Amino acid sequence: MGAVFARRSIRKYTDQPVTDDALRVLLAAAMAAPSAGDERPWYFVVIRNKRIRDQIPEIHPCAHMVRQAPVAILVCGDRGRQKHKGFWSQDCAAATEKILIEAQQLGLGAVWLGVYPVRGVAEGLSRLLRIPEHIMPFSLVVLGHPAEHKEPADRFDDSRIHWGRWRRTAVKTEAADSGVRRDAWETDR
Amino acid sequence: MGAVFARRSIRKYTDQPVTDDALRVLLAAAMAAPSAGDERPWYFVVIRNKRIRDQIPEIHPCAHMVRQAPVAILVCGDRGRQKHKGFWSQDCAAATEKILIEAQQLGLGAVWLGVYPVRGVAEGLSRLLRIPEHIMPFSLVVLGHPAEHKEPADRFDDSRIHWGRWRRTAVKTEAADSGVRRDAWETDR
Repeated sequence: MGAVFARRSIRKYTDQPVTDDALRVLLAAAMAAPSAGDERPWYFVVIRNKRIRDQIPEIHPCAHMVRQAPVAILVCGDRGRQKHKGFWSQDCAAATEKILIEAQQLGLGAVWLGVYPVRGVAEGLSRLLRIPEHIMPFSLVVLGHPAEHKEPADRFDDSRIHWGRWRRTAVKTEAADSGVRRDAWETDR
Repeated sequence: MGAVFARRSIRKYTDQPVTDDALRVLLAAAMAAPSAGDERPWYFVVIRNKRIRDQIPEIHPCAHMVRQAPVAILVCGDRGRQKHKGFWSQDCAAATEKILIEAQQLGLGAVWLGVYPVRGVAEGLSRLLRIPEHIMPFSLVVLGHPAEHKEPADRFDDSRIHWGRWRRTAVKTEAADSGVRRDAWETDR
């Protein structure tokens, strides 16, 4: 089974360090991501320092595992590098996903912790890592050699697929879940 | 070389159709993506119909290749399915990237066309495909059997990596590019 399907969120790690060479492969994978107009708005902060890692769970409520992990990568974006307004976060998401899949290829385990658009978390990490005002922390990838094993997830759901056009019958129960019309969605540019 | 590094944007395709089985593998890859709180806000519209495809370039300015492609997948999101506000578009980006990498694994070629947050394009595609008001078209993946070959891109840029904390020296020239402080960025929830 390929890494695309085998990959799961891994939150427990052995004491074995992740080498700089492995990190460079992961960051090369990230930078191999497509981006809107090839704008590449991404930056990466590699966090190994234990004292810095220990402070992260005080900022991010789901980041307890970063204390025990050998390393984490903060993926950041620079909106000023956009060629197409509103796409920087999608570019950073593609880069984050590339890191996760390549980590699986290398036998590493990783988990994607969301940062943007949670303002308090983004600000806290920015202060901790001295990130300049025009750069936005986007995601935190925590990684190491896996100390837990998970079988591939089966999330396939046929009801999410519409062949040809949207089938009206599939919609009824969902409409009530949301209730916010498309034209009222705020956009981030 | 693995699919993560080999994959490029392919915009020319042979006449060979993409089978339903292959499409199901691609959609399973999409749904294998991680999402915030495992919220899985995604939907997929599979577009084969030539008359529908022919109308898409009138809506999306970069979609000329969809006329000649055997199939396209519109990835959509339902914000009402979010467990963590503001993360639906990142989830959809991860799913889109999974489709691209799996297409490469299957010997197919694909290109990611951005849709959200370009309002006119999202509305035009919604009308064409009868997408309900609470669902947002996010990205259009155009795909087929490749009729062009591209070498892997080398986008590795050491200056985008900060080891430990952000290095102040690397920042100076970038600040002028952007000028929008983090606290002024709008967020999309």
